[in-house]
Amino acid sequence: MSTLDFTLSAGPVATTARTLAALGAPITYHYDPEFLEAFRRTQEKVAQVFRTENDIILMQGEAILGLEGATRSLVRPGMHVLNLVQGVFGKGTGFWLADFGAVVHEIEVPYNEAVDPEQVEAYLDAHPEIELLTVVASETPSGTVSDLSRIGPIAQARGVLTLVDIVSALAGMELLADEWGLDVCVAGAQKCLGGPPGVSLVSVSEAAWKAISANPNAPTASYLSLTDWKEKWLGQGVFPYTPSISDIHGLEACLDQALEEGVDNVIARHRDSALVTRAGVRAMGLSLWSADEISGFCVTSIALPDSIDHTELRSYVRDRYGVMLSSGQGAGNLIRIAHMGPTATGLFPIVGLSALGRALLDLGVSVDVGAGIESALDVLSKQRN
Amino acid sequence: MSTLDFTLSAGPVATTARTLAALGAPITYHYDPEFLEAFRRTQEKVAQVFRTENDIILMQGEAILGLEGATRSLVRPGMHVLNLVQGVFGKGTGFWLADFGAVVHEIEVPYNEAVDPEQVEAYLDAHPEIELLTVVASETPSGTVSDLSRIGPIAQARGVLTLVDIVSALAGMELLADEWGLDVCVAGAQKCLGGPPGVSLVSVSEAAWKAISANPNAPTASYLSLTDWKEKWLGQGVFPYTPSISDIHGLEACLDQALEEGVDNVIARHRDSALVTRAGVRAMGLSLWSADEISGFCVTSIALPDSIDHTELRSYVRDRYGVMLSSGQGAGNLIRIAHMGPTATGLFPIVGLSALGRALLDLGVSVDVGAGIESALDVLSKQRN
Amino acid sequence: MSTLDFTLSAGPVATTARTLAALGAPITYHYDPEFLEAFRRTQEKVAQVFRTENDIILMQGEAILGLEGATRSLVRPGMHVLNLVQGVFGKGTGFWLADFGAVVHEIEVPYNEAVDPEQVEAYLDAHPEIELLTVVASETPSGTVSDLSRIGPIAQARGVLTLVDIVSALAGMELLADEWGLDVCVAGAQKCLGGPPGVSLVSVSEAAWKAISANPNAPTASYLSLTDWKEKWLGQGVFPYTPSISDIHGLEACLDQALEEGVDNVIARHRDSALVTRAGVRAMGLSLWSADEISGFCVTSIALPDSIDHTELRSYVRDRYGVMLSSGQGAGNLIRIAHMGPTATGLFPIVGLSALGRALLDLGVSVDVGAGIESALDVLSKQRN
Amino acid sequence: MSTLDFTLSAGPVATTARTLAALGAPITYHYDPEFLEAFRRTQEKVAQVFRTENDIILMQGEAILGLEGATRSLVRPGMHVLNLVQGVFGKGTGFWLADFGAVVHEIEVPYNEAVDPEQVEAYLDAHPEIELLTVVASETPSGTVSDLSRIGPIAQARGVLTLVDIVSALAGMELLADEWGLDVCVAGAQKCLGGPPGVSLVSVSEAAWKAISANPNAPTASYLSLTDWKEKWLGQGVFPYTPSISDIHGLEACLDQALEEGVDNVIARHRDSALVTRAGVRAMGLSLWSADEISGFCVTSIALPDSIDHTELRSYVRDRYGVMLSSGQGAGNLIRIAHMGPTATGLFPIVGLSALGRALLDLGVSVDVGAGIESALDVLSKQRN
Repeated sequence: MSTLDFTLSAGPVATTARTLAALGAPITYHYDPEFLEAFRRTQEKVAQVFRTENDIILMQGEAILGLEGATRSLVRPGMHVLNLVQGVFGKGTGFWLADFGAVVHEIEVPYNEAVDPEQVEAYLDAHPEIELLTVVASETPSGTVSDLSRIGPIAQARGVLTLVDIVSALAGMELLADEWGLDVCVAGAQKCLGGPPGVSLVSVSEAAWKAISANPNAPTASYLSLTDWKEKWLGQGVFPYTPSISDIHGLEACLDQALEEGVDNVIARHRDSALVTRAGVRAMGLSLWSADEISGFCVTSIALPDSIDHTELRSYVRDRYGVMLSSGQGAGNLIRIAHMGPTATGLFPIVGLSALGRALLDLGVSVDVGAGIESALDVLSKQRN
Repeated sequence: MSTLDFTLSAGPVATTARTLAALGAPITYHYDPEFLEAFRRTQEKVAQVFRTENDIILMQGEAILGLEGATRSLVRPGMHVLNLVQGVFGKGTGFWLADFGAVVHEIEVPYNEAVDPEQVEAYLDAHPEIELLTVVASETPSGTVSDLSRIGPIAQARGVLTLVDIVSALAGMELLADEWGLDVCVAGAQKCLGGPPGVSLVSVSEAAWKAISANPNAPTASYLSLTDWKEKWLGQGVFPYTPSISDIHGLEACLDQALEEGVDNVIARHRDSALVTRAGVRAMGLSLWSADEISGFCVTSIALPDSIDHTELRSYVRDRYGVMLSSGQGAGNLIRIAHMGPTATGLFPIVGLSALGRALLDLGVSVDVGAGIESALDVLSKQRN
Repeated sequence: MSTLDFTLSAGPVATTARTLAALGAPITYHYDPEFLEAFRRTQEKVAQVFRTENDIILMQGEAILGLEGATRSLVRPGMHVLNLVQGVFGKGTGFWLADFGAVVHEIEVPYNEAVDPEQVEAYLDAHPEIELLTVVASETPSGTVSDLSRIGPIAQARGVLTLVDIVSALAGMELLADEWGLDVCVAGAQKCLGGPPGVSLVSVSEAAWKAISANPNAPTASYLSLTDWKEKWLGQGVFPYTPSISDIHGLEACLDQALEEGVDNVIARHRDSALVTRAGVRAMGLSLWSADEISGFCVTSIALPDSIDHTELRSYVRDRYGVMLSSGQGAGNLIRIAHMGPTATGLFPIVGLSALGRALLDLGVSVDVGAGIESALDVLSKQRN
Repeated sequence: MSTLDFTLSAGPVATTARTLAALGAPITYHYDPEFLEAFRRTQEKVAQVFRTENDIILMQGEAILGLEGATRSLVRPGMHVLNLVQGVFGKGTGFWLADFGAVVHEIEVPYNEAVDPEQVEAYLDAHPEIELLTVVASETPSGTVSDLSRIGPIAQARGVLTLVDIVSALAGMELLADEWGLDVCVAGAQKCLGGPPGVSLVSVSEAAWKAISANPNAPTASYLSLTDWKEKWLGQGVFPYTPSISDIHGLEACLDQALEEGVDNVIARHRDSALVTRAGVRAMGLSLWSADEISGFCVTSIALPDSIDHTELRSYVRDRYGVMLSSGQGAGNLIRIAHMGPTATGLFPIVGLSALGRALLDLGVSVDVGAGIESALDVLSKQRN
């Protein structure tokens, strides 16, 4: 097997040396005054990236912890919830909602399409009993995105709370949490921020806190509890449990880099890499999994011919060429070249295209690798002009 | 305020440069073959330190996550549980048990005493309906330990499952999980192992798995679920959620160091530092919080005169002398010098004693610092002879 | 300007995370027993890579320090020295030799050719007064190599000492110092070893020591002195000056990696990357600077059309595409893609070819980038078969 | 043998995590635009710490490289030089001066005394043929300092150039290079700056450059050459040899920290630690090697009874207590507790005093360790009041 030279998978992703140095910074007691200050600074910086003045909660655990905590906190048995499903994660949300006792409404589309905001509007108008809308901003397994800029205001105008899973796309797509009226947003750092995979970044609006405190089922005295964080940490300055010193330092470092670069520039960098990649994919003779207008910038999903299995292809590319791509993860027979974090720039897409193209050739699929690389470089050259 | 020069608090603790380098190692995709191998190696090494052949689960979150997950997994409504209470954490366990629907039996002693194993034996004999015993191996806030070598076999002989919170004392006190018949043990890395604070180390016996699978209340499809880890990871090689690459690398590094040094040597090192510290405390004219025979090796708890508040003293020592100690954390008016991880050796106790002694003098408490240091050095000199 | 994404220059080169962690390891006193042991271990490992049982001296400074020290140590005024010149560094050696008082004989060829060993043999036979032969193993600025396997024995058979500048090619070309009778070899770590740029690695044979001790001009009590190292460090265990703790740790780390991989495998990896690159260069329609049989594996030198200036091209590629290549450094109008250290593998040559090819297109040079990438990938695919 | 817990030796010294992270930062090509900028920034920062507007040269090698280079550059055969000798390094300078052909004048005092500036003044007045004065600012082996604030102006007023060895005391004693008229200053980073041991920091005045360019013996085309750096780097932006990327990053990091803290505060911190240590030494019943008014702040030198050998004591303390002190290094039978860099603060002197005091007790020397620690803490408490 080859050594690992390039991680172009859909998270956790390669990080900068600066972020790694922060992850390896000395560990202190969590009540050391210097750490308390670092923790609070980091909250502030998360809020800046979210573009929100809502409370920020940094839970210690992969982002699914924040998602579960937020969902359990908001959902009461018998509550009507509209769940938008255009991919694997949206589908999973529905199972949780049902488990937690909600009356689940769903708008579902095939995994290479996106839910139409107008349909959401119509559905909410037709179902005034709905109190909560759940939506996945970026369906990483298939690469499609939701239009939060329209869905958020639609919900807000109808007094419907929103719970947004933006785990994989923070800093990889536009997010204006307050302007769009998003109540609860949950993100991870190990994707477009190029940060550590161990933290959940959660924003909670006043309206959401009100709903949570009125929910007898909202977890308390639990690792899943948002309420504990609100009461103990935000209220009394006491941690409900020991946060990971290392992860907070790593998180602050990647936020610093994003803010120094400018969040809009970070997003543009992801978009540019996506466009370079897609030009290459098309010129090679391959098909993209979803239409451009609903495809996010953090991964490029490529439909595979039936003769090729996506997980075997992923292994082949890794073994043979030292490049880690991502497979379809349940969404379909597709392979994904991610452009997330520090590899969403410059020639990294060329690496992904070369590895994928040559591997397909090796496996008997006819692709025009040279044309692909040329087209990709052409787009890059123009971007950098 | 002084800069932080020494962390002698009760965890998270100072780590070695080698562990920090591992925490700052490159982040890869979690399904990269090299990471999968590292994850499995790390499980093996945890088992070695636990001295068990039971399954090992590495949950992504501070050890309280493992504790909550394990408790929820084991406890059925109506189940009779004996909870041993000799400190803050034991007390908390009781609240959880009640919340989760158990019929809670408790043996409780003052927080500077330890539950007598004979009393446990008698209680279990008198209450054959008890199915689970919960015990905190090391009550860090007060510094006392439980005698697992006796309690474990007592429970096992009666068919009672054991759930052991050994969060703070792994590698700081003897642990023979299998020999003592301990069914579920939950530990953290950020204490005597000198590792990262973001992971829960959990061992689960066959008997415990049986009880869990028979428990309809055991969490599934949840961040708290042990069952998910068993079915998905142990069963199918699929992670239930993304583990923290960095924390696993940091964890493996601190385990490697413990195994290279020899776990028994690590424990002896903690004991030696405790003895040095205690000689110093006594010779200074201060009182230990608990009797020697029930005091663990990972912290030395010192009773404070009423004129001194423990949290203010902790802040004073940190501000004035750059040393982070721990306060009583709810257990009483006491201050703690921890000897955990890389600072459980050599002259680190002298640093703690000097900081504490001089601070007390500054604050008007008459202590004989010189005599304290001399006695402490005397013990150290003999240990190193 | 783009951020730096890839360093494909001719040294210092990108290093592994493991080497960087070693460079960032805690600094200790140089007489700390642990450092003394590390220093001696590192000497041993250098000897293994050199394939020698001669003494190893690790001087603190870039490799040119070792070269100057060795040259001054060996050269007496009036001594006849044969200097082989096929590039910039060989040319420079001649100036030094003259400065130090030698009677300089030179065999010089154009910088895209290599000195013929048979000519060396004939020259030495015709000039029995020659006592020392100086040769550059790898002329990095132009990319050509000398055949040490033949030149070494020719010199040795005639009682002529050899001074070998292998600064840039250690672990990038075969070296059997003892078998080939090489008396003094000087190397750097910042090239094919992927190590730190701050140390000179020098091997010295018994015969060379004899010549040095007979040379009244050999530096003593000087930073340049090999004699100081022999007498003080090798003789008495006392450093002539403080070595760099960090560099020694970094050096040991990169040596460990080379020895674990196997030095022959490291060399093969460099060769493979060179072959991939050259296939790409040719298929793009560009010309290599020197013939294959005299081109080393650590850089690929590409002749540029007159319309393009090599230093401007280097800047353009760096600014536009975030890739650092090397220019001709005095050897001619050429650009170099290096394959040294951790980037001498897999798809890194594709990155270099893409950056170079597209930059040339941008600047109006007609190259067939797609064909180049395809040919390069074709070679790589076969290597990895 | 104990593990190394504390480095309290006279350099290389312990460094901060921030400096170590910089040493372990990614290595780039030395002509990468980002490195060129970092190199120039670092020069500026050295100038700020030197308090000079003279040129700064950063030579790649331990500070003795800078000293040798500067001395060879300035000294012509037959030149009259006044060398001040109050310790081991001053003595060594004299040997060099003689080697390089100078007519050497010396004012020498015992190694626990300091040369009187008035005597220097008188000597220079009596010897107008003297063109250069050489002085060691801080004689680390014995711990004494020279009064540069008086010696510098005395020399300058007489048109005598000054060459100052301030290797060990930069940021540990006041230095106003321009105000005091110091022509050439040579320092290291691995002492009070807590930086890497691999670089020489050299400042050169216009007058010194004039003398150097008029000196036919000044090294050129040599690793020792200041002239090469002036012509190539300062003149043309071309490095005379590859600088160590890692060392420059490490150097910049430690300079940043010194400048952020304020150089005067750094010096005050060293002074405070020296005073704490000295109070402890005296109260223990030991004698300081030199009088307070001529003792520097970076080491405290303690005279040993004849029954104890300094190097054996150093080894004993290291082996038994894990603390690295420094021995007399040729200056006499003395042991040194250094307070340099990050350990020149707070309770680190207590560690040194405890280790030394207890070791002496172990070895049969009667010292009052308790009284020593109490006095030391008393001084510290007042400093921090």
